[in-house]
Amino acid sequence: VIVPVELGARRYEVLVGDGVRHELAATLAAEVPGAGRAAIVTQAGIGVEVDPGMPAEVFTVPDGEGAKSLPVVEDLCRKFAVFGLSRSDVVVAVGGGVVTDLAGFAAASFHRGTAYVNVATPLLGQVDAAIGGKTGVNLPEGKNLAGAFHQPRLVVADLDTLDTLPLRELAAGMAEVVKYGIIADPALFRSLRTGDVSDLGAIVRRCVEIKAEVVADDERETTGRRATLNFGHTLGHAIENAGGYGKLLHGEAISIGMRAAAHLSHKKVGLSLDAVHEIEATLAAQGLPLHAPDLDRAKIGQALKLDKKGANQWVLAPEIGRTVLTGDVTAGDVEALLDLVSTPPAS
Amino acid sequence: VIVPVELGARRYEVLVGDGVRHELAATLAAEVPGAGRAAIVTQAGIGVEVDPGMPAEVFTVPDGEGAKSLPVVEDLCRKFAVFGLSRSDVVVAVGGGVVTDLAGFAAASFHRGTAYVNVATPLLGQVDAAIGGKTGVNLPEGKNLAGAFHQPRLVVADLDTLDTLPLRELAAGMAEVVKYGIIADPALFRSLRTGDVSDLGAIVRRCVEIKAEVVADDERETTGRRATLNFGHTLGHAIENAGGYGKLLHGEAISIGMRAAAHLSHKKVGLSLDAVHEIEATLAAQGLPLHAPDLDRAKIGQALKLDKKGANQWVLAPEIGRTVLTGDVTAGDVEALLDLVSTPPAS
Repeated sequence: VIVPVELGARRYEVLVGDGVRHELAATLAAEVPGAGRAAIVTQAGIGVEVDPGMPAEVFTVPDGEGAKSLPVVEDLCRKFAVFGLSRSDVVVAVGGGVVTDLAGFAAASFHRGTAYVNVATPLLGQVDAAIGGKTGVNLPEGKNLAGAFHQPRLVVADLDTLDTLPLRELAAGMAEVVKYGIIADPALFRSLRTGDVSDLGAIVRRCVEIKAEVVADDERETTGRRATLNFGHTLGHAIENAGGYGKLLHGEAISIGMRAAAHLSHKKVGLSLDAVHEIEATLAAQGLPLHAPDLDRAKIGQALKLDKKGANQWVLAPEIGRTVLTGDVTAGDVEALLDLVSTPPAS
Repeated sequence: VIVPVELGARRYEVLVGDGVRHELAATLAAEVPGAGRAAIVTQAGIGVEVDPGMPAEVFTVPDGEGAKSLPVVEDLCRKFAVFGLSRSDVVVAVGGGVVTDLAGFAAASFHRGTAYVNVATPLLGQVDAAIGGKTGVNLPEGKNLAGAFHQPRLVVADLDTLDTLPLRELAAGMAEVVKYGIIADPALFRSLRTGDVSDLGAIVRRCVEIKAEVVADDERETTGRRATLNFGHTLGHAIENAGGYGKLLHGEAISIGMRAAAHLSHKKVGLSLDAVHEIEATLAAQGLPLHAPDLDRAKIGQALKLDKKGANQWVLAPEIGRTVLTGDVTAGDVEALLDLVSTPPAS
């Protein structure tokens, strides 16, 4: 299946299917015709080999969100230079969000802009991180504070690579899937209630379609449309950031953030309590956490202040499948949400 | 005088004149209407104060080409975050190419793209570095190897700030002025022969017009037009880079590079010997060096290989005011040029 991301001169395609990574060489030749060599960026643990069909060298970046730093980007750029990569060549990222964010930002910066391709191996990357051109690194002051909008030339989502994904990472990816259901597709949302994910192919394809449509409509997050993808992310990022990265996976922090956003949506914009409980039950059915017992409130407050999405912009859902942005969230609201997510739902 | 840079949605203006930096507050309010605070980036030695007309904090970067590094960009972004700069605010760079390259790249990266304005204080910045959106830093492997195309919202070229410029820096700026004459304007070129620069205002305005027109025509250096601005820069950058930065000013290295490019133009594309000698005499009249006695040839060879302009692309001038790009330059040609620029012209 090919899902296009319609961005005019920056249009590209997402290949979704079993074994589609083996089409990389042919597709690269078509999409980046000037490339004579490829810099493959991956992690030691990924273990997915790709053949770009041209002279290539593999560069590994460290594991974990902590690897998303400017020194790692500099290291990549320096190695690209020594490898002899020119601005007409191509960077191929193979991995999850950490790899695609790093390789994408390095490609954006190297020679002030070099083509790159994402081969997304985990679920989270396939449905979210690899699509849309957001690249970047974290600063000690906040997540993704330095980066670039730099669209890939191609995204490959090979369903085969999901077979060996640890269950915890699969669940973390499902957090973003649940999010797509909440913000854009009630039928998708309802289909997730049982926790049955045997038809991952259909799930990935539908999420890619939603993401592609939103990105095409609001590439640089200026109209508010792309911001709706941040449902659950305002508090989720702050929790993830305050945890010092690594304790909670991104998707796990977002799950907790979505629970908070659901309750806030009930309070502020009339989301029904039934829907709130459906959201909680669906996240739980996917094996995702709904609370974190020892939140560092001072750090979370600081992270909220520095989050570029802004403490003043929350995505709320008046009903499943529809969102609104609001700035009407007080410090008291945040305190109440932190109280809420400190304990599990009463079941 | 206002010179527009016609880039459609990214159109902006260059203000040229005596005291125009005092128009900054009013112009900022018009050009970046959403900005609520300004991060002013400058160097200790610049000493030019500006009033952005909104809450502001000053951040200084180190002097010299060596400051153009990713750690300095990271430091700026971190300080922007602590200052509370949001993506709707503005960065104001006050200084020369080092400052505008650094602040521009930090602005490009911060929140994946924040507005910035250049207040160019030296001649080199006013006629070249501040205009056109090329931002970036050096890597040990080469000059400007990491960066971004990120257009400013406004460029201010206040002629008053040239009054206190050290003569050596003024001369270095004149190297780029001579370049504009060679590549695009025979009348400008001839006017520089005496070394009289009493009408700097007219000189700055004319160079800004040329730069603006070239950038508008080829923003991302893809058609070959913008590449013509690199006359003298292929070897000049390599000499500057091999020198470890700091021994020669950028304009001084470019002067030597232009002498080489002039001779190569004679050899390859028929530039008259008279014109070659006029170029040498004009550079000398501006107080610029024409040779460097102790060139590190191994380092220059390496720098040429890694220069993103490529050893394979040289800008040559068949006559004053016209350029061609050529890939037809051999290692032997480079050796001959290095022999040439190791000694002064026989006068």
